[in-house]
Amino acid sequence: MTTTETSTLVAATSATEVPLLPSFVEGEWWSPGVDARASAAPVRDASTGELVSLVSSAGLDVEAAVRYARTVGQKSLGALTFHQRALILKALGAYLTEHKAELYAVSTQTGATKRDSGVDIDGGIGVLFTYGSKGRRELPNSTVIVDGAPENLARDGSFGGQHVYTRVPGVAFQVNAFNFPVWGMLEKFAPAFLAGVPSIAKPATPTAYLTEACVRLMDASGLLPSGSLQLISGSVRGFLDHLDLRDRVGFTGSASTARSLFEHANVISGGVGLTAETDSLNAAILGPDAAPGTPEFDAFVASVVTEITSKAGQKCTCIRRVIVPRAQMDAVIDAVGARITARTVVGDPRADGVTMGPLASIEQRDEVLRSIDALLAGGGRIAFAADDAAAEGEQRAAFTGPQVVRADGSVGESPDGAFLAPVVLRFDDSDSAAVHEIEAFGPVCSVIGYDDVDDAVRLANLGGGSLVATIASVDPAAVATLFGGIAPFHGRVLVLDRDDARTSTGHGSPVPHLVHGGPGRAGGGEELGGIRAVKHFMQRTAVQGTPAVLTALTGEWREGAPTSQSGAGAAPASADEESVDSVDESGAAGVSAAEHPFRKPLSRLRLGDAVASDAREITLDDISHFAEFTGDTFYAHTNEEAAAANPFFPGRVAHGYLLLSWAAGLFVDPEPGPVLANYGLENLRFVTPVSPGDRVHVTLTAKQITPRENESYGEVRWDAVLRNQHDEPVATYDVLTLVSKE
Amino acid sequence: MTTTETSTLVAATSATEVPLLPSFVEGEWWSPGVDARASAAPVRDASTGELVSLVSSAGLDVEAAVRYARTVGQKSLGALTFHQRALILKALGAYLTEHKAELYAVSTQTGATKRDSGVDIDGGIGVLFTYGSKGRRELPNSTVIVDGAPENLARDGSFGGQHVYTRVPGVAFQVNAFNFPVWGMLEKFAPAFLAGVPSIAKPATPTAYLTEACVRLMDASGLLPSGSLQLISGSVRGFLDHLDLRDRVGFTGSASTARSLFEHANVISGGVGLTAETDSLNAAILGPDAAPGTPEFDAFVASVVTEITSKAGQKCTCIRRVIVPRAQMDAVIDAVGARITARTVVGDPRADGVTMGPLASIEQRDEVLRSIDALLAGGGRIAFAADDAAAEGEQRAAFTGPQVVRADGSVGESPDGAFLAPVVLRFDDSDSAAVHEIEAFGPVCSVIGYDDVDDAVRLANLGGGSLVATIASVDPAAVATLFGGIAPFHGRVLVLDRDDARTSTGHGSPVPHLVHGGPGRAGGGEELGGIRAVKHFMQRTAVQGTPAVLTALTGEWREGAPTSQSGAGAAPASADEESVDSVDESGAAGVSAAEHPFRKPLSRLRLGDAVASDAREITLDDISHFAEFTGDTFYAHTNEEAAAANPFFPGRVAHGYLLLSWAAGLFVDPEPGPVLANYGLENLRFVTPVSPGDRVHVTLTAKQITPRENESYGEVRWDAVLRNQHDEPVATYDVLTLVSKE
Repeated sequence: MTTTETSTLVAATSATEVPLLPSFVEGEWWSPGVDARASAAPVRDASTGELVSLVSSAGLDVEAAVRYARTVGQKSLGALTFHQRALILKALGAYLTEHKAELYAVSTQTGATKRDSGVDIDGGIGVLFTYGSKGRRELPNSTVIVDGAPENLARDGSFGGQHVYTRVPGVAFQVNAFNFPVWGMLEKFAPAFLAGVPSIAKPATPTAYLTEACVRLMDASGLLPSGSLQLISGSVRGFLDHLDLRDRVGFTGSASTARSLFEHANVISGGVGLTAETDSLNAAILGPDAAPGTPEFDAFVASVVTEITSKAGQKCTCIRRVIVPRAQMDAVIDAVGARITARTVVGDPRADGVTMGPLASIEQRDEVLRSIDALLAGGGRIAFAADDAAAEGEQRAAFTGPQVVRADGSVGESPDGAFLAPVVLRFDDSDSAAVHEIEAFGPVCSVIGYDDVDDAVRLANLGGGSLVATIASVDPAAVATLFGGIAPFHGRVLVLDRDDARTSTGHGSPVPHLVHGGPGRAGGGEELGGIRAVKHFMQRTAVQGTPAVLTALTGEWREGAPTSQSGAGAAPASADEESVDSVDESGAAGVSAAEHPFRKPLSRLRLGDAVASDAREITLDDISHFAEFTGDTFYAHTNEEAAAANPFFPGRVAHGYLLLSWAAGLFVDPEPGPVLANYGLENLRFVTPVSPGDRVHVTLTAKQITPRENESYGEVRWDAVLRNQHDEPVATYDVLTLVSKE
Repeated sequence: MTTTETSTLVAATSATEVPLLPSFVEGEWWSPGVDARASAAPVRDASTGELVSLVSSAGLDVEAAVRYARTVGQKSLGALTFHQRALILKALGAYLTEHKAELYAVSTQTGATKRDSGVDIDGGIGVLFTYGSKGRRELPNSTVIVDGAPENLARDGSFGGQHVYTRVPGVAFQVNAFNFPVWGMLEKFAPAFLAGVPSIAKPATPTAYLTEACVRLMDASGLLPSGSLQLISGSVRGFLDHLDLRDRVGFTGSASTARSLFEHANVISGGVGLTAETDSLNAAILGPDAAPGTPEFDAFVASVVTEITSKAGQKCTCIRRVIVPRAQMDAVIDAVGARITARTVVGDPRADGVTMGPLASIEQRDEVLRSIDALLAGGGRIAFAADDAAAEGEQRAAFTGPQVVRADGSVGESPDGAFLAPVVLRFDDSDSAAVHEIEAFGPVCSVIGYDDVDDAVRLANLGGGSLVATIASVDPAAVATLFGGIAPFHGRVLVLDRDDARTSTGHGSPVPHLVHGGPGRAGGGEELGGIRAVKHFMQRTAVQGTPAVLTALTGEWREGAPTSQSGAGAAPASADEESVDSVDESGAAGVSAAEHPFRKPLSRLRLGDAVASDAREITLDDISHFAEFTGDTFYAHTNEEAAAANPFFPGRVAHGYLLLSWAAGLFVDPEPGPVLANYGLENLRFVTPVSPGDRVHVTLTAKQITPRENESYGEVRWDAVLRNQHDEPVATYDVLTLVSKE
């Protein structure tokens, strides 16, 4: 695989023999036989109509691909931890970045401008980097995610519960839309990969050649574990027949296709997990305060124009319904029209200065035209079309055969390209069903008016559930009402105002950190959202058992589980006695019990390794001295009478920070060793006040061990419990340290 | 409403005129007209066959009930915070506890023994208490749940994202099974109520009179907000026609009914959220180590017998498949049989000594008999039946007409009762389809043998997704393999061994803290699991905006949002400058800027109220002194050469705990005031080492304010940032305090 080969498709557009687009299944590149050419789907350059590729999966064994994922893919990914998978994602991101010019070249044929390609290609690579980073920052270096806090279910602590996520043992089958051939594939692949579930990607036919180019690079990188990614170019009709409760399907596309998937018996009652992202009539709401002249008005107008022109409006997240105060309808239409006129140059993306390319195909353009007709029939009027003539006459011809910039820089009609000029419709009846139901998937939006913010909420929600909405307002009351009203109907809400207009990531751009998806008409699914999406490929299971069992199955030491204690106070706490004995019987703990756990590098440190300290008495002088030294003269530490009047203290008590500091003095092993630093502390609770004369001792137990793949050290979380002379807990917390591997 | 009236149904069994069971809709008790009697479903006492009630919803307007929930119910619950709702749940739990004898009396008619009623009635009340408690401990005292950490999306911090959950604006429609008329209703009601979503409960007809009795008590308590709970006794055919994306359906029942619900257009594409809990062929796996004579073997056998006899085996969580080492099949069957013989007394629950009642109805018993026939036809053989004769002959008659204890204490056949003696089947072919597919919903289980633990995993997973499985083993390797293998097919896994056998909550008992539900055949849903279930009734939305907007919409102050600063160092940080100015313009901040926020009670404290301290220099003497005073002589603080050799430190550095202690000294306001105590600290990270000569200062900002409903104080979380003389962050953390309301 060389970079020259990757660019085959670009070259092929000028060749006579257009290739059949290959698939990547069972670890091999596979092409249908030549007899498939006759029935293969032809795919054309969006701007020129030249044939780019032929797509067919005739003869491809989908069931075998599923089997390969469930066996080879599961095995190779199962051998890796979250951190190892995350590092591969990061490396894939770096590899694709290095080779992205090849993808940009291919992308032009889909009608994408350079900026559009950036959203698709750099956006997709960004997802790899985000999951590469979050996988190492937010997940343990293991294969199981612990969900939530442990639940103690027995009075004596001998029985408890904990939720864990384990990966599903099947395949992530990914059916994508044509509009984001790279991002669409990678945004589904990355979280599945991080979960340890192999993917089968099925791109939409019209732009499958770009997805193929991306998968070809990923394969060439040598970074992909066997079976972790397969690609099917062409139809996968009936794929659900091969799936069951082990598998997950991620679908992006039309509501009607989604419906047929949801109706499949393997989804209805077979346990296949299906996430769909479908039609969405996203709204942008102009706040009542955001009159012309305000920064919010300008930001709103800019956002509307950006949305309907970027990717020629072919985005599931595009603004379709522009909901504005009734009195501002004309102002908004004028400003949007003026901005389009000033900024939008429609043409072949290969020509300089073009800001908006064609739609993906002639068929797609015709589909949009039909939708516009339906919107007009439903009460819409053309308020603005890039060709001036159209604004008057509502004639379809005015925006269907626009003057465009051709690849050679000349201007004129280009009937073989799927061009369409931006169209703004206006509905005087804001309740028209058409405007809330018909998605014209191109450079088209509709302006409707509202009476007050409650009316704006009602109108936005008539979309029946959407991916995203924008609220442009700097009035806190309006924002609160609008957000509160529309939030349950939306997967994402962007609040645009003067302070984030420049730095906002934009209405139409899902970011990998936040969920992408929406309820109702939007499909009801969720994708992305950081680690949330990883969990879609895992089953949440409540595990119940003893602390020892929970420790073993979660990788996090739980109170009551066996410990191997060193230190002067190493007599086991009463509840642990039996468990400690049983560890001693195994021989292992007997050897290590004498060694302070701070002397153990990660290679020898085990969950449950602990140190129990001597007791130390706290005097009134200590408290006074600490108050003076630190400046923390809070009355509870310095004024007996005032302290006693406090509902929580018996009188003067030791500072919490004094206790923490002394605890460190009690558990620390001072000489240089594998423990490099205390980098933090979590979940601290002061449980019992400590009075002068009390004696405190501390137990520190290794709770979680996270070696870093690319470092000579890792993180160790220690369970710390400070107790008084009655063995009552005084303070509980987690100490976070960095510890050398050797 | 008096307690006498509640007991109407108990009395009615001896009356001639059996009442039509009322519904509770639109805030009123409603009964069908007398002409509904002819078509109403007759419900009989499970032990005696006497008519208990007639059930019909003829003439009931389901659509009006839905509308009432969406309007009146949403409004009354929307006026309450999570804490206020939680307190109502707690009070309802207390009220039902006080009146539970009335429910126990009614419950007997369903065939439930006292112990069975305990699971249903006390179990249901326990759910109310758990949500009453978790709602106040784990949720803010507001109406929005913040999900996960904030995501910064702009280099300058002016734009970020955060996930929040807001309640759906519809109804929680709850369709329940006959086996747990109280628990089934309450376990769905409590989380919906806490979320702020009104419920419509539709119990199964055979035991609807017990649910009705419970709702009658809840209504009589006067605690229910208007419209927060409605009850439909009788059929709700077509109810999905009235629901849309605002609504959630929780279904417990047969897989075939679930299928018809999942196939409804309003679920497929209308956005109705549907959670189902259906058939489940739950497994119990005897570990290879758990031979006869071990505590695990005994615990396993006891668990199997408990499961198939409690509630006469009519539990979705009941053990159906007893998966044991092939060599132990006989031993297990013998031990299970012996335990049943020794302990199980079948009869009318009104009689003393009865440990297992009848099934819920004759129809239900006949259904179980048909399932047993199918299991026998599928390769099963009767290995044990309580009547000795049956063990030999596999004759249905042997266990269908058992000798039972009648209500008067006499023993004999009781043909009008739905009695069935426990039956243990054996399958020599462990791969028989029947044993993995047919759920005989009564006191019935099947024993199959496995070859090794991988085979045991395979067999357990042939259930196609289950609610729960038990693993009885004390061998860590076996437990790890079994758990790892079955976890993705199960919603809950219980690991039983000698250390939790006595304290385990049991295989068959969902606890409100842990999720109840399972993938695949088990329905694919999740219920309970603490706050997880509350989120099922809320929509997760990613909100994007400025820190000020995120603060306002989440109720948590975010870095970069406006502050109102007091203190010597009160010059605003550069990023805040503009925002602070705008606050000053409002006049409010100008007044309060001079006041230390520790002087403000909750009534006056606002998010963003802050104190910025003076700077304080740290000397080598300070570090040495702190090391000596605390005993924390870790080399990084005491040995220049060793410290410099550490990869993270430039040389000797200040203790992290010294920095924390000094920070408190810098920000604290020492005199008695509204701040009562520092009860904890969270998310501490030491970011930059502090060397001798560095000067540190701290900013403390009110981040979250949580007044306690029933206390004179509440919790305030403060954002603390300690910075050095270059304004680099040195340490960041949250300080947790208790603060008076006034």
